[in-house]
Amino acid sequence: MTSIDAQRLKTDLINLGNIGRRPSGGLGRTSFSAEDAAARQWYFDRCAEAGLEVTVDGIGNLIVSSPVADELTDPTRPAVWSGSHIDTVPDGGAFDGALGSIAALECLRRIHEEGMALARPVRCIVYADEEGNYAHLFGSRAITRGFPRSELEALTGRDGDRFVDTFTAAGGDVDRAANTVLPEGTIDSSVELHIEQGPTLEARGIDIGVVTGIVAVGGGTITLRGRSDHAGTTPMNARKDAGVAAGALLASLPDVAAGISERAVITSGIVTFAPGGANVIPQAAHVTVDFREPTAEGIAALESSLIARAKEIAAEYGLDVDIDFEQSVPPAPLDEQVQSIITAAAEERGLSQVPIHSGAGHDSQNIATVAPTGMIFVPSIGGRSHCPEENTDWDDVANGGQILLDTIIGLANR
Amino acid sequence: MTSIDAQRLKTDLINLGNIGRRPSGGLGRTSFSAEDAAARQWYFDRCAEAGLEVTVDGIGNLIVSSPVADELTDPTRPAVWSGSHIDTVPDGGAFDGALGSIAALECLRRIHEEGMALARPVRCIVYADEEGNYAHLFGSRAITRGFPRSELEALTGRDGDRFVDTFTAAGGDVDRAANTVLPEGTIDSSVELHIEQGPTLEARGIDIGVVTGIVAVGGGTITLRGRSDHAGTTPMNARKDAGVAAGALLASLPDVAAGISERAVITSGIVTFAPGGANVIPQAAHVTVDFREPTAEGIAALESSLIARAKEIAAEYGLDVDIDFEQSVPPAPLDEQVQSIITAAAEERGLSQVPIHSGAGHDSQNIATVAPTGMIFVPSIGGRSHCPEENTDWDDVANGGQILLDTIIGLANR
Repeated sequence: MTSIDAQRLKTDLINLGNIGRRPSGGLGRTSFSAEDAAARQWYFDRCAEAGLEVTVDGIGNLIVSSPVADELTDPTRPAVWSGSHIDTVPDGGAFDGALGSIAALECLRRIHEEGMALARPVRCIVYADEEGNYAHLFGSRAITRGFPRSELEALTGRDGDRFVDTFTAAGGDVDRAANTVLPEGTIDSSVELHIEQGPTLEARGIDIGVVTGIVAVGGGTITLRGRSDHAGTTPMNARKDAGVAAGALLASLPDVAAGISERAVITSGIVTFAPGGANVIPQAAHVTVDFREPTAEGIAALESSLIARAKEIAAEYGLDVDIDFEQSVPPAPLDEQVQSIITAAAEERGLSQVPIHSGAGHDSQNIATVAPTGMIFVPSIGGRSHCPEENTDWDDVANGGQILLDTIIGLANR
Repeated sequence: MTSIDAQRLKTDLINLGNIGRRPSGGLGRTSFSAEDAAARQWYFDRCAEAGLEVTVDGIGNLIVSSPVADELTDPTRPAVWSGSHIDTVPDGGAFDGALGSIAALECLRRIHEEGMALARPVRCIVYADEEGNYAHLFGSRAITRGFPRSELEALTGRDGDRFVDTFTAAGGDVDRAANTVLPEGTIDSSVELHIEQGPTLEARGIDIGVVTGIVAVGGGTITLRGRSDHAGTTPMNARKDAGVAAGALLASLPDVAAGISERAVITSGIVTFAPGGANVIPQAAHVTVDFREPTAEGIAALESSLIARAKEIAAEYGLDVDIDFEQSVPPAPLDEQVQSIITAAAEERGLSQVPIHSGAGHDSQNIATVAPTGMIFVPSIGGRSHCPEENTDWDDVANGGQILLDTIIGLANR
């Protein structure tokens, strides 16, 4: 049984975790930013150093292959894909995405170094904009369903920038981006290693989570519209204050989630008042919402309930309301055969494992729509993620990397 | 009795109202911005065209004199000041500040054109940053109490820019700014024309408001601090969501105000969540508050009540809270003799008048701390202000300008 180089995996994770680090200690590698470009360049250098070859698809996903391993198989056969992302949320951690990206690279390096003859080619992937600054799970969504050019033109980031401008400035070609869809038969199967980002594995003392499915996710913006007036001369009872109404909406989010299920969650991470002067009553309040529930019925009910609550609050305060939600991503059950291969690998290596559901969205849910797909989770310390404190024990990192390699080989030789 | 040129006043207001106009129809002339500089240049040009002389003080206030009128009086005597501001809130109207600035210019032009011999010199003023992007009533506060250089260094605008950087880029000299305080005996008395910015005069069909006093104002930022976590994997009951708590605070503002008095108002015009990702639970929520009450006791009670509510909410949600309030501006009673002169002028011109309290802050409340000061209000259509719809009938503009001239002459010849 081939082993990964756990020290090399650790060193790479530490080095990548120093790119885009902020004074807070968190990472800021928004997709297509200068920090993201630096991380991608670092990744290119690692691949070159290892003798691996990188291609960049139209949307900016990186696809890595081993010329040595490809010589020893039929490289035109559907490939085993493994990878994750290296972009981060605005003040994120060093493991979310980075672990699965670097571990997949480590696996391909080992296959390359060993000159391993496999029944199928293996590809290592870095998906662009997983954190969805421009669209939810952007890179994997683009290659599985495609974005027409008109949709790309309409995308904007959290800083108000247009995707097409930022993408072009980063060296992208929008014409090519609009046509990036995977040819059928590209992927045989896929497996992604990721930190759990929740407290379950650590709390139960389990080494490996075998992911059974990925939560459904919806989201977008609720805009409440009132009337801007002078903060000093307009009596409280004569106001149409969009900010106060937005407050009522924000405060009610836990109730709306609890009304659907214990597993339903709603988050508002960005709120903007317009016109945005300290002495002006807000005319408009833009409230982003991200809502999740594990079932198709649950996500639909959560969306309806949230819209109903926004309308009730608008009516109560005498305001108008606009709802602008993206189409919800349906729940993604993962492939049972891939789960079996992961479970068998963990048993063989003497690691404890448990089936687990993912409350986070992942590129694997898009890949699952075109090929059998699985995910491996390792514990997150304190369940923390999307924050500077995000952390995973190095032993768990090594375990995850090893089970990933075993699974990739298992899939490639099925 | 000398008349103003109402047509010239109207034309000037229309022209100034086209500088910094946004697609919304509102004006964006933040102090020391390019749009503000364009408005100031336009104002310089009007003064030059009229043969008036402009000096700029250390903080950026404009002080205009008539060489003709100064020849006919003792220009070293304390002067009658009149003026307002030409900066605006981010999406403001064409009358707030502009009316008082242009009307004062029109009055000085008429004094200059008539070669009027007055007992005292007259100065026409444009105060810098009345809208308080850097500090509440910045220009008038600077010349009446002074800003130490250390305080100037600490000021930031709503876009996160440092005052000293923006001021320097706009041609200002920070060393000189830090030493800008009016020598004693500069001002004999002061009168400012302004739109009411509220509904009272229009509703009662009154031409002229004789302002008896200006509301007390407090404000600053309340920051709630929780914990940032992943939006998908953190159950609702395990969160420390600063955004949801900020919502509860915003929703409670009307109650807090009502608990003090019917005239108490609280406005939150800017809210920012950090780190600011749509799929990240907010670690911090920064909530600006602007609160006002006509009495000294009332403003103190309002401030205490707001702090208490913020602490209650933080405790309820298990968060930390930081309160960062500027020292409240006390209520400013205006001078009774100046009120009498305004009232007499209105009666002489056959205009209806009524005593009125100002719910808005004005530079006059700072000037009132160093010299007898009055204010004249004219009606605001629909009571609207700090918005693109802000408007005043041209007849009311002309009435206000005329009463301003009569009052200036009355003060100058006292």
